[in-house]
Amino acid sequence: MGSDSDKETRKKKEGAYEQLKPYLERAMALQASLILFEWDNETLAPEEAGKYTAKVQGTLSGIYQEIITGKAVKELLEECKKEQRLTEAEQAIVREASEELCKLEKIPPKEYRAYQELVAESARIWSRAKREEDFDAFAPTLKKIIFYQKKFAKYQAKDGQRLYDVMLNDYEKGFSIKKLDEFFGILKRELVPFLKKVMESPVKISDDILEGDYPKEKQRELAEFLAEYVGFDFKRGVMAESAHPFTTNLHNHDVRLTTHYKKRMDSSLFSVIHEAGHGIYEQNVDDELTQTLVGQGASMGMHESQSRFFENIIGRNEAFWVPVYKKLQELFPNELGAVRREDFVRAVNKVQPGLIRTEADELTYSLHVLVRYELEKMLIEEDLDVEKLPELWADKYEEYLGVRPKNPSEGVLQDIHWAQGSFGYFPSYALGSAFAAQMVRFMQKTMDFEALLRKGDVEIVRQILKRHIHRFGKLRDSRKLLQDMTGEDFNPQYYVEYLKEKYGKLYEVKI
Amino acid sequence: MGSDSDKETRKKKEGAYEQLKPYLERAMALQASLILFEWDNETLAPEEAGKYTAKVQGTLSGIYQEIITGKAVKELLEECKKEQRLTEAEQAIVREASEELCKLEKIPPKEYRAYQELVAESARIWSRAKREEDFDAFAPTLKKIIFYQKKFAKYQAKDGQRLYDVMLNDYEKGFSIKKLDEFFGILKRELVPFLKKVMESPVKISDDILEGDYPKEKQRELAEFLAEYVGFDFKRGVMAESAHPFTTNLHNHDVRLTTHYKKRMDSSLFSVIHEAGHGIYEQNVDDELTQTLVGQGASMGMHESQSRFFENIIGRNEAFWVPVYKKLQELFPNELGAVRREDFVRAVNKVQPGLIRTEADELTYSLHVLVRYELEKMLIEEDLDVEKLPELWADKYEEYLGVRPKNPSEGVLQDIHWAQGSFGYFPSYALGSAFAAQMVRFMQKTMDFEALLRKGDVEIVRQILKRHIHRFGKLRDSRKLLQDMTGEDFNPQYYVEYLKEKYGKLYEVKI
Repeated sequence: MGSDSDKETRKKKEGAYEQLKPYLERAMALQASLILFEWDNETLAPEEAGKYTAKVQGTLSGIYQEIITGKAVKELLEECKKEQRLTEAEQAIVREASEELCKLEKIPPKEYRAYQELVAESARIWSRAKREEDFDAFAPTLKKIIFYQKKFAKYQAKDGQRLYDVMLNDYEKGFSIKKLDEFFGILKRELVPFLKKVMESPVKISDDILEGDYPKEKQRELAEFLAEYVGFDFKRGVMAESAHPFTTNLHNHDVRLTTHYKKRMDSSLFSVIHEAGHGIYEQNVDDELTQTLVGQGASMGMHESQSRFFENIIGRNEAFWVPVYKKLQELFPNELGAVRREDFVRAVNKVQPGLIRTEADELTYSLHVLVRYELEKMLIEEDLDVEKLPELWADKYEEYLGVRPKNPSEGVLQDIHWAQGSFGYFPSYALGSAFAAQMVRFMQKTMDFEALLRKGDVEIVRQILKRHIHRFGKLRDSRKLLQDMTGEDFNPQYYVEYLKEKYGKLYEVKI
Repeated sequence: MGSDSDKETRKKKEGAYEQLKPYLERAMALQASLILFEWDNETLAPEEAGKYTAKVQGTLSGIYQEIITGKAVKELLEECKKEQRLTEAEQAIVREASEELCKLEKIPPKEYRAYQELVAESARIWSRAKREEDFDAFAPTLKKIIFYQKKFAKYQAKDGQRLYDVMLNDYEKGFSIKKLDEFFGILKRELVPFLKKVMESPVKISDDILEGDYPKEKQRELAEFLAEYVGFDFKRGVMAESAHPFTTNLHNHDVRLTTHYKKRMDSSLFSVIHEAGHGIYEQNVDDELTQTLVGQGASMGMHESQSRFFENIIGRNEAFWVPVYKKLQELFPNELGAVRREDFVRAVNKVQPGLIRTEADELTYSLHVLVRYELEKMLIEEDLDVEKLPELWADKYEEYLGVRPKNPSEGVLQDIHWAQGSFGYFPSYALGSAFAAQMVRFMQKTMDFEALLRKGDVEIVRQILKRHIHRFGKLRDSRKLLQDMTGEDFNPQYYVEYLKEKYGKLYEVKI
């Protein structure tokens, strides 16, 4: 009896939050194991393991869901919300857990399972359809995914909320359709005509030097050098190969990048700096936040702002190459020994409207995203017929980029996102670039940004990003972080200015 | 109400075993995730991840323990034991689950978790101590591990059972201290004097050719070739590098080997055939058993019998090299082009008492194990002071093998096992070799074993092992499997005879 009442007293003393912690620790451990399985599937697992390992993953997700939606967690979360003395981190964790609970408990388990099975299968169907350039083979699956996505969004929607707004909120809080319409409206109005001028410019840039006999081993050496140079810590991270580059992490002391090696050497080079940007973000989340529900980057858009900051604003900056270019020449004496640094930097900044988003240059990139934003909004909000997608896609590419896909594989089938049920994800790619531009404009007010790069001082830049962004994890949303760092709310004008200034100069276009 | 009583009826109809299954599925999924974390730690995880990942591993073990020891599983297991119509596999699964429950429920969850975290971290402490040749840096951790090991064994011990017997039973059922004292007694009595004779033989074998400029890339090519040649299926498996070679698996469609590449080319060569032996065992467990509690190899000893069968009885057999040696000469024309096959085979069978178990030749190998058996028995049964280990270790090496370590890294710190809490594991290395000898003697009765190898028919040998051993997983214990295959109980004389015959001939020693 004594021990029972002791326990009771201790429980009361502990408070709801302390009691909640072990449940969340379990949920986080399961999440970490799911992340490791995904990583392993993408980088190493043997060909025939899939079916058996999927069963393991399904079971682990089930346990995760059960913990989050269990009676204990639900009650403790309610009590926590009433508690007065929680720290900012604790409050944020309670908020995230409540949102997760709210999302998971509203979906009937049977529907959730059916959807999970559909999505597990759809990546394969999409992949085959893409290989065979056959949109019709994917369309029925896409329809089903959209059906479930809308259904689930309906469960979440608060009175009158638009379904696409519900989806957007999953990836980027504070960016509704209204706000994104404004943002993409500016991009369309400003960048589409500007791109036309760039293409009509008499200045022509050749990037022939980037394609050639760049040995894979040397490319790998370069990749490791660059990742470390920009600040990725290999004592807390690793790099591997996969079909499509990505970054993932178990916690802030275990962050993992992948890359691929292609004939065009700039493909791996910039994908590595890009992924290192994601990785640096995760490595610099505060120790106190890692392994909690707020221990990851703030949002998809904020994550993308860091990867694109490193890739473009640092990596495609002429000043960046001043101390680094000789390393490239050492690694590839035959290919680059006789190439001037200026010509190399011009080559990696060549503007060339194309069909494939992941290969797009910095200027045209967000126009690829614009196409996707407009189309997924129509799919969710206007019940656009899936069959009409390829044609509409092609029309929009022609209008904004001046190119038209000849088959669906270089058009609507190119990205895996919709096959994974990720609707509302694409806008963050463009938002990230815009966040990054706002950040660099802020930095330039107080320091000579280019001079730092020229001296090889990427570290100072990284420290600033750490101080204002990285360390906070998911504690604050992207608009709050931007506001706190730059002193103003998100302002897309900086992005437009940044692009016009850089590419206006390069292509001698008046702006 | 209707649905509740429906559920009740269905439950009764389903039977206890069907109700038990989802719990065991969860336990197995957690086990698979723990295996993946271990694999990842050994092969890839970044240096500083340890502490954070250990927390995840500790939490997952905790969930595993909770599932196995939960009220539901306990009650269902009791019901299952009464059920009449279970298949052999179902009975075995119930037996394994009951043993696991029995083991885990006696350990207080807090202690279990503390122990898991201790062990997750101790590998790193051991590894640093080994690198720095500093036993004192590891001793406090080893003491803690032994403290927990004995404590846990005490929880399990049935009236009067000796603690080391409890531990031995975890790795090899049916092999108590009494039985192992007999076994190791025979080895000591027979092999220590035989080894002296071999060392005094006028026959001297040179293995200089094995050390040289063997390029790592070519060694890797050879490793993949040999693993596949002896029957490892790369569609259901992968190979990676790690400091110490090992094999693990998530299920029978995902089996993972590691190797290392050294200057001495036979190191990777035989470690790969050895690990492939483990891997082949796991790949050939029946599909119906994989992902259940009996879906792994029968025991540590039986596992080791397969790896050592492939490594020694197949791989160090002159007949094996008849079809394969030319491949080696192609890969290493400078090193082996002018070396006769006979001389190569003699070199890889050279007897050379040394300090390191994993580099030991076939004859001296079990004497390394003998040292460890005697010492861990003293640690557990006689409270041997950990501080005295290095000296005692050195004395025993001198007595049995005629060599004495100059520092603890080539002595007591060489193996990771104790750092992982694996007490009672070592004897299985010697047992495995002895099982393998008994198996080949059986095969030789009904077929021309060497003729098969000469023709390159390893596949036929593999099929026999699959039929008698692999497919059964943990359904039957090692003595039963040996009995069923060879027609008699374990008999260590076959091992002694095999070694004396092979090495007596090679070194022209009368036996």
